[in-house]
Amino acid sequence: MSYLRPNIDRMHAYVPGEQPKVAGLVKLNTNENPYPPSPKVVAALRDAIGDGPTLRLYPDPVASALQAKIAALYGFKPEQVLVANGSDEVLTLALRAFVGEGQRVAYAMPSYSLYPVLADIQGAKKLELEMNPDFTLPERLFREHAPLKLVTSPNAPSGVAVPTKTLDRLCAASRGVVLIDEAYADFADDNALRLVKKHRNALVARTLSKSYSLAGMRVGFAIGHKALIEGLMKVKDSYNVNRLSQVAALAALGDRAHFQANVRRVKATRERLRDAMLAFGFDVLPSATNFLFAKPPAAMTAKKFYEALRARNILVRWWSDPRVSDRVRISIGTDAETDRLLAATLNILAEVK
Amino acid sequence: MSYLRPNIDRMHAYVPGEQPKVAGLVKLNTNENPYPPSPKVVAALRDAIGDGPTLRLYPDPVASALQAKIAALYGFKPEQVLVANGSDEVLTLALRAFVGEGQRVAYAMPSYSLYPVLADIQGAKKLELEMNPDFTLPERLFREHAPLKLVTSPNAPSGVAVPTKTLDRLCAASRGVVLIDEAYADFADDNALRLVKKHRNALVARTLSKSYSLAGMRVGFAIGHKALIEGLMKVKDSYNVNRLSQVAALAALGDRAHFQANVRRVKATRERLRDAMLAFGFDVLPSATNFLFAKPPAAMTAKKFYEALRARNILVRWWSDPRVSDRVRISIGTDAETDRLLAATLNILAEVK
Repeated sequence: MSYLRPNIDRMHAYVPGEQPKVAGLVKLNTNENPYPPSPKVVAALRDAIGDGPTLRLYPDPVASALQAKIAALYGFKPEQVLVANGSDEVLTLALRAFVGEGQRVAYAMPSYSLYPVLADIQGAKKLELEMNPDFTLPERLFREHAPLKLVTSPNAPSGVAVPTKTLDRLCAASRGVVLIDEAYADFADDNALRLVKKHRNALVARTLSKSYSLAGMRVGFAIGHKALIEGLMKVKDSYNVNRLSQVAALAALGDRAHFQANVRRVKATRERLRDAMLAFGFDVLPSATNFLFAKPPAAMTAKKFYEALRARNILVRWWSDPRVSDRVRISIGTDAETDRLLAATLNILAEVK
Repeated sequence: MSYLRPNIDRMHAYVPGEQPKVAGLVKLNTNENPYPPSPKVVAALRDAIGDGPTLRLYPDPVASALQAKIAALYGFKPEQVLVANGSDEVLTLALRAFVGEGQRVAYAMPSYSLYPVLADIQGAKKLELEMNPDFTLPERLFREHAPLKLVTSPNAPSGVAVPTKTLDRLCAASRGVVLIDEAYADFADDNALRLVKKHRNALVARTLSKSYSLAGMRVGFAIGHKALIEGLMKVKDSYNVNRLSQVAALAALGDRAHFQANVRRVKATRERLRDAMLAFGFDVLPSATNFLFAKPPAAMTAKKFYEALRARNILVRWWSDPRVSDRVRISIGTDAETDRLLAATLNILAEVK
């Protein structure tokens, strides 16, 4: 006999990308930023820790200072911002606030593999549609009703952005909430924040994990109509974001010069890597993110390429899901890591010839 | 038209105790520890931050090192331990893993006022029983069936511990999970951890917020049968506890001498405060926690006492709920804060005479 709800009993847990503890590994598997956060983050953390006296006190439940900073940065009101323990928590809260047991969550795959897991946890019905072969959104996503639709843009693992006018049409066509998961938007040329001003059902999720190099601190946020944010606020744990995470995020958002230089550098490396991989005969989708989704030349499967890289201490991501098993996802690393990856790739290609 | 689930729309959010930013305030309202965490926590945090390079990396999803430490400390296997973003997250995960929409959650009030809120969020049915007048558990809690029963022991706001043999009987009588919320157990003479070895349905939640002075870092944990922990693991966000929280908790648990001295000091102050309040004519329940639940002498209501303290910059907690509105809950502060509280109390009592 199980004590678990049947949906929990049945479901498979989400499997995050490996965090191996191998020294000297080139880790390009979980889309972390290869560069450290702003030195101002380090200084602010040291200052906040001091001799430790404030660690004994609960954090600000709504992270007011951070909420105000985010609101000001993007031109919204503080009550339109929810700060969360990573943007994963935004997704979890959205499921819990908007989708009752047995109700539908709609999304198109391949995309973030957490979506079906979150639906299963909530006991929701998955309306899992197929992306068009060119990774554009399927028409059914517009037509079908669901209290919550989830769209990652730019998408993972494809790296392709959904045009904002398409998202605009999706919000207009939907009676429920449209959550636009913009984890990678800082690496793209456009984003959907302006839709929040136009549509009461548009909710944008962001994270500081990638573009601000703070994956270890777990800070994300949602921007939406006040009524949506209020709903998420009711559902979140009182103290969902700890003191030091609030401090780190505030300092990171405050250092615009560091942020812009960091993003510029990642984008430049991304284009250099893409050009080189294309020259090697890979099919590489244009990316609006900090990763590439690449298909090896005909002589080699993606799985073999993944394994051959792994044998050379370079970790990228490969999924057995047949919709994406012909490609590997490569997070953008430092220039030195990129050079190692390219050298290894040349070496692997030479072997299969 | 609302985008929220009807249960979310209807419900009232949990209201955490105030975290005011008034300088010089004696803050005895949210059961924080008055003393800072171990200096080893500060050293470990500074060491982990360094120049910031690891902050860009995701944390260990299951906090393996911390999980192993907790398991070793209490004599369990690592797979019997779940590390969470405060023990509030343990409660949230338990609701989501064990209680389907429309199913029952049973608990006796007055207790932690978060319980009905969590039930509302989940869309669960609340089987909210009344504590006996002496704050013992009502017999119906043993008899009724629910997939999840919640018991805080020692209880808040009463401060009274449920005898472990009573909890043993509750686990034996229950077909569902019995979650024993032991947020305050480190200040008590006994605890229910041994029940986990005896009952497959016993789940114990703990926090480092109180006895380890780490409320600001948000670390709690659950200990239970492997099958229960596996269920909670499926439901939690992948990276629910950030890097620095894991580091801080590991260091805090490692410094036994600091922990024991800290707890001993809080308990000594608690007894001194209780003796003094009794001498002033208050009715003060014996406490197994880091707070007292005190009823002022007949000349004054608890609300008046709360307000009079507040006017003197001393913040304690008072609830309008008629079951507990005759008492205030006073967190144990430093000796100096206790002296200020006692002086203010004498002063207030003199005024009403």
